[in-house]
Amino acid sequence: MRLITLTTDFGTRDWFVGTMKGVALGIQPRATIVDITHEIASGDVRGGAFALTASYCLFPKDTVHVAVVDPGVGSERRAIAAQTRDYFFVGPDNGVLSFALAREKIKSIHQLTNDEFFLKPVSRTFHGRDIFAPVAAHLSRGVAIHKFGARLKGFVRLKWPRLRLLDGKVEGEIVHVDHFGNLITNIDGKSLRVFADKPCEVFAKRKRLCPIAPFYGAVPIGRPLGILGSAGFLEIAVNGASAAEKFSLRLGDQVGVRPRVKSR
Amino acid sequence: MRLITLTTDFGTRDWFVGTMKGVALGIQPRATIVDITHEIASGDVRGGAFALTASYCLFPKDTVHVAVVDPGVGSERRAIAAQTRDYFFVGPDNGVLSFALAREKIKSIHQLTNDEFFLKPVSRTFHGRDIFAPVAAHLSRGVAIHKFGARLKGFVRLKWPRLRLLDGKVEGEIVHVDHFGNLITNIDGKSLRVFADKPCEVFAKRKRLCPIAPFYGAVPIGRPLGILGSAGFLEIAVNGASAAEKFSLRLGDQVGVRPRVKSR
Amino acid sequence: MRLITLTTDFGTRDWFVGTMKGVALGIQPRATIVDITHEIASGDVRGGAFALTASYCLFPKDTVHVAVVDPGVGSERRAIAAQTRDYFFVGPDNGVLSFALAREKIKSIHQLTNDEFFLKPVSRTFHGRDIFAPVAAHLSRGVAIHKFGARLKGFVRLKWPRLRLLDGKVEGEIVHVDHFGNLITNIDGKSLRVFADKPCEVFAKRKRLCPIAPFYGAVPIGRPLGILGSAGFLEIAVNGASAAEKFSLRLGDQVGVRPRVKSR
Repeated sequence: MRLITLTTDFGTRDWFVGTMKGVALGIQPRATIVDITHEIASGDVRGGAFALTASYCLFPKDTVHVAVVDPGVGSERRAIAAQTRDYFFVGPDNGVLSFALAREKIKSIHQLTNDEFFLKPVSRTFHGRDIFAPVAAHLSRGVAIHKFGARLKGFVRLKWPRLRLLDGKVEGEIVHVDHFGNLITNIDGKSLRVFADKPCEVFAKRKRLCPIAPFYGAVPIGRPLGILGSAGFLEIAVNGASAAEKFSLRLGDQVGVRPRVKSR
Repeated sequence: MRLITLTTDFGTRDWFVGTMKGVALGIQPRATIVDITHEIASGDVRGGAFALTASYCLFPKDTVHVAVVDPGVGSERRAIAAQTRDYFFVGPDNGVLSFALAREKIKSIHQLTNDEFFLKPVSRTFHGRDIFAPVAAHLSRGVAIHKFGARLKGFVRLKWPRLRLLDGKVEGEIVHVDHFGNLITNIDGKSLRVFADKPCEVFAKRKRLCPIAPFYGAVPIGRPLGILGSAGFLEIAVNGASAAEKFSLRLGDQVGVRPRVKSR
Repeated sequence: MRLITLTTDFGTRDWFVGTMKGVALGIQPRATIVDITHEIASGDVRGGAFALTASYCLFPKDTVHVAVVDPGVGSERRAIAAQTRDYFFVGPDNGVLSFALAREKIKSIHQLTNDEFFLKPVSRTFHGRDIFAPVAAHLSRGVAIHKFGARLKGFVRLKWPRLRLLDGKVEGEIVHVDHFGNLITNIDGKSLRVFADKPCEVFAKRKRLCPIAPFYGAVPIGRPLGILGSAGFLEIAVNGASAAEKFSLRLGDQVGVRPRVKSR
């Protein structure tokens, strides 16, 4: 398998991503490299972790996933690679891989210390190019993961915001705002099943925001809806417009779902 | 042939385009996937149709072109694939394919209903990933188009803005504003031939805007010109600057070409 | 070898880059095309030259590098291809290739005049698609460079801003502002060696800006530092934030390094 994905906060204005690909293709000319996104907010490790976890499992088995949101580059933070039942993951050990790893059956995790597989001299500002891209390329060529360094017992985990279920309500928070202005929450499809087919509604700050609907066009243009989105989480959307602009809601704000309150 | 192109309004901030590629490459690992653009304005079906029609014919024979600007995703709008003499086209049947199909010799158009070729469960918010990407990958592997669903007699057509030719003038409108601020019109090279080699000028709201010139540098820096652009249409440009900023002209505004009026 | 890189000011909103790839892949279906960036500021030839020179040498031998920042497209400016010991370069002869060529051992440079290798009819607004992409694809297929046109004796060179070394100080200027707001200077690692391991500091307009540090996290969050960046030049950065926003410094502004002045 020759697929490598990249998730970074490097942007696309500079040559950073291009050089990562140049280094990887120099080692594995047959690699197919797919950009997940390079527009994670600068240093937003959790945003990178979320993008990776929303996308990695759509790729074929043995894909090597590289995620580099790395404000601690050059410091003592570890660089790691993990092998799971279906994939490889490569990146800094700062939590950016942790949401995806938490969902996977992990075989082993290794610290990246064997500089035989690095681009030398290794800079202290761009490990994406000097460590992570070459390690990913070597992995995709079939180099065994234990060659890169010693096995680790754990990895840095980011806290996934908890759901609260009480009084017949499910409460969570906004974890991502997408390109369309849809507000993606951490409320997953499974936790919505408590409502079975009973009518329910999305609320924030105790106020009703919108009903749950099966697709955008099920409400009139300009009207809001809650919808189970393609990443498996409840999203607050507006048909034909931006929910982020309509509502003054932001990343981290609390939202919930409750049985529909009849208006009198 | 293994070329697939993507034209969408998904932006590049999220994982949407990456997952479309992951799904397609899982089915056809040898695909080469080329991004036309992912920055069509949200829900701007006509903008997507124009980008596709300006680009598709530059690709080699048998390329599979996917266009997803799909505000009606999840509703009853149909999903279609078309085979023409030279290409395949895949997308929602909302007009986004219609400018390109209007220029092509169509062999057959099919509704996409055979979910054997879909990613399951099919979401109601992201058919780009669940229907269009996998269908494109199967087409590029050589699956015959009739396998995807019943043959259709027609498809939804967007209206291409009409040119008016009268009194020795050609009148059209602005159909795209590009990255450089060039104002691209629907006035094509053929309709400019009525002026043969006689001097002519671009006008809007009856006022002269600029002369026609053969290349940007034919007028001084900062000066406007009309020019037959690379997509085959008259463009209003400014040498070294943005026509969109210089003129208060926007998408849909009327512009025309007339014989040069001598200033007295 | 089948690697082609693209560095342009075409942006990603339109179909321009996509059609360059379509044309190249029609000629060389086995090409792997890597985007360096398409977000060079419109017409900023020097910005394009800098991005190319910061990235080209990370690619494997025989890569064909295409750079198109081409405000003079359609005029009499020449189109060229160069073969160096390790690479090929293709673009307009306006200096965009010159920083890279100045670092390379040049074998020969040729004017692109043989329209047998062009996409016809050649437009006067988009040589990226009509000349540079097809020539790059033919080069990557192994067409000898002398087939494209007559050998040239020279090429247009941009002036690389000079360093001044005096009074134990090194003075240069800001040559690039990156996505993170890091201010990249033309002061290279070699010229910093005059300070050996003595403590030194970055200054601008005679005022001290920040110390030199080995990695971002070596100073507290929100604090500035000078650092030898991954492109081999001194950068002014802020740990966890944007130096461009913190300091009112811009492209072309003078900055320098001097021995640390003890505060009293």
